[in-house]
Amino acid sequence: MLTVNGPRLWNSLMDMAKVGPTAAGGNCRLALSAEDFAGRALFADWCHQAGMSLDTDAIGNLFARRAGRDPQAKPVVMGSHLDTQPAGGRFDGIYGVLAGLEVVRSLNDAGITTDKPLEIAVWTNEEGARFTPAMLGSAAFCGVLPLEEALAAEDAQGISVATALAGHAGNLPLGRAFDAYFEAHIEQGPILEQAGLPIGVVTGGQAICWLDVRVAGSPAHAGTTPMHLRRDALFAASTMISRLEQLAGEFSPHGLVTVGQLAIPGSSRNTIPGQVHFTIDLRHHQDAQIAAMEQDARTLLQQLATARGLTVDIRQHWFSAATPFDRDCIGAVRQAVTALGYPHQDIVSGAGHDAIHLARHCPTTMIFIPCVGGISHNEAEDALPQDIRMGADVLLGAVLQRAGGLLAG
Amino acid sequence: MLTVNGPRLWNSLMDMAKVGPTAAGGNCRLALSAEDFAGRALFADWCHQAGMSLDTDAIGNLFARRAGRDPQAKPVVMGSHLDTQPAGGRFDGIYGVLAGLEVVRSLNDAGITTDKPLEIAVWTNEEGARFTPAMLGSAAFCGVLPLEEALAAEDAQGISVATALAGHAGNLPLGRAFDAYFEAHIEQGPILEQAGLPIGVVTGGQAICWLDVRVAGSPAHAGTTPMHLRRDALFAASTMISRLEQLAGEFSPHGLVTVGQLAIPGSSRNTIPGQVHFTIDLRHHQDAQIAAMEQDARTLLQQLATARGLTVDIRQHWFSAATPFDRDCIGAVRQAVTALGYPHQDIVSGAGHDAIHLARHCPTTMIFIPCVGGISHNEAEDALPQDIRMGADVLLGAVLQRAGGLLAG
Repeated sequence: MLTVNGPRLWNSLMDMAKVGPTAAGGNCRLALSAEDFAGRALFADWCHQAGMSLDTDAIGNLFARRAGRDPQAKPVVMGSHLDTQPAGGRFDGIYGVLAGLEVVRSLNDAGITTDKPLEIAVWTNEEGARFTPAMLGSAAFCGVLPLEEALAAEDAQGISVATALAGHAGNLPLGRAFDAYFEAHIEQGPILEQAGLPIGVVTGGQAICWLDVRVAGSPAHAGTTPMHLRRDALFAASTMISRLEQLAGEFSPHGLVTVGQLAIPGSSRNTIPGQVHFTIDLRHHQDAQIAAMEQDARTLLQQLATARGLTVDIRQHWFSAATPFDRDCIGAVRQAVTALGYPHQDIVSGAGHDAIHLARHCPTTMIFIPCVGGISHNEAEDALPQDIRMGADVLLGAVLQRAGGLLAG
Repeated sequence: MLTVNGPRLWNSLMDMAKVGPTAAGGNCRLALSAEDFAGRALFADWCHQAGMSLDTDAIGNLFARRAGRDPQAKPVVMGSHLDTQPAGGRFDGIYGVLAGLEVVRSLNDAGITTDKPLEIAVWTNEEGARFTPAMLGSAAFCGVLPLEEALAAEDAQGISVATALAGHAGNLPLGRAFDAYFEAHIEQGPILEQAGLPIGVVTGGQAICWLDVRVAGSPAHAGTTPMHLRRDALFAASTMISRLEQLAGEFSPHGLVTVGQLAIPGSSRNTIPGQVHFTIDLRHHQDAQIAAMEQDARTLLQQLATARGLTVDIRQHWFSAATPFDRDCIGAVRQAVTALGYPHQDIVSGAGHDAIHLARHCPTTMIFIPCVGGISHNEAEDALPQDIRMGADVLLGAVLQRAGGLLAG
């Protein structure tokens, strides 16, 4: 059973972490910054040393290519991103890119040529920390975002993507056909670590429903208004939020409910809140279930408001349907992890990834490994060397099966 | 039974409302502004016409005096304030001053001289809208606030009370002895209106306990963190706030609980809140009961935090003990309202008033009348002419009893 060189992969991750280091041991390589380009240059050097060719498309997505036996075949693509949050970690994105590189290096070591060509993709501005939206490069590649819009996006200093890209965009066509896309990534959550499992077989991405809620009662004086005559929007909102927590339990374990923001306009310590605004983030990996969650939340909030003589306005701010990953790609991952004998479980991606866009373009899936404490988007982000190695072993196995050629090695 | 001239009082209130009018029918006479001084000048004209003398003290409190039969007697004082909120109403404060003037005018009409002198006090900066603290003039008069501090208080433009007062401060000593203080005021709450009663016999002021609460959990990603692994500070805070509402019920009807402010530091729509800060305003007219409320609230919040594996920090931000009004003064009001045959009930003042300070200086009480919808500190503040009249009748009756001389009229 072919496996990767774990220490080599770990060392490459640590070498990449020297580009744009932060004081607390993390990384700052904002998209299309000098640090980001330095990281890409280091990666390109390694790819050249591994015998790969490199090219970019109009939005700066970088592709390293290893030829296959069949010149007509579409490439099997691995990848992720090298940009980071302003105070980001050493693994989010970087792992998917360098695991792809380690797959190629391991194939080189073993003298294996696959039937289909292999590529490693470095997607532009995945984090969304410098330019909005996040996952900008893969969105432009997959036709989710028009190229002109992507190029016009500006950072906080008014610098556009087009300006920041100057000299780094190439002629590879957007939307080229891929045979498949595999993205290895740290989980960015606590599930695998809690379960003590090194591998998550990712079956898809969650549906997300964002609601904006406005509860309206009557502002009044905290000292002069008897309790029974109050129309307190915060007492109402607090009951609503407590009941939303219970609603998550009714959709357990896959339903997630978060109230991330709450505001009391014009609040003061001794005024009964007349207005409360809060957000709801609903998640589930099944579209039918998230629709049921939204409906139940709406009914619940309406009932609670009416019971108190208050009004509630609920608006859908954003909705993103569930992204089921490709059955054959998932099968290839499952077969690899089983053959390797690595403990694993199925898991749904709770965060956004370039793979969510790619899933609309070609057969796609992801491979998750644990991250320490579930912490990500943080300089303290960490992953264990053995998990790093095992995830790359699974990627190698799945890609080899998809690309063909193991028996010819 | 001597009563006041209701239409004359109403007309004076409407004339005063022409000084510093707002577009929505309210008033803006910020303390010691040109509008406030114009209002004081109008009042002074009326007092001169009523045969009264005027003088001020070092903090600009204005006193109009009507001599009594006994030159040695301490004055029976009526009053309140003429300053308003920036978008204030026509009655808050003004009513107490002009009801006092109407009492004097009615005594003049009836040819009555009281045994003790009468005074009408106009306290400086009651609202606290321009200078902090509120009730500044009465606080300085009663020795609650040192004069130097009161004079040094600055508005948002950096203008001090001393500067704003220039030319308007006089030599009447602070802390002069009063025989008694009676303040008529709109209720600023809905109790009397809901009960259909024109008069509230005010028995005292509430104790107030302000707490600052900080709930600490763990911030985490809304998409990647299973519900059972969350330490969501907002779900915890919402449960706490719902239970605080129930706690108010356990101290019903006199216990009041308000959570007026709530903040989630660094909040974002798709991040589980790791920190929530909120305020608690507890009120009760009995010191022992507010102490029990505070203790119960602390125990409750601690238990709820511990049950969720979160921490809670609870600090007392401010405490003001209950202010019982003077038994004899309350008795004088009760006797007057009973003799007049006006429907009434006992009531506790839920808002701050100059009378709360005066109660520490001399025998004090208040008389409340309803305000429409319980609305105050608002341009829509309103009161009915018959309630205005009845409240002044009660003030006249109570003051006459205290000051003596009706039989000599």
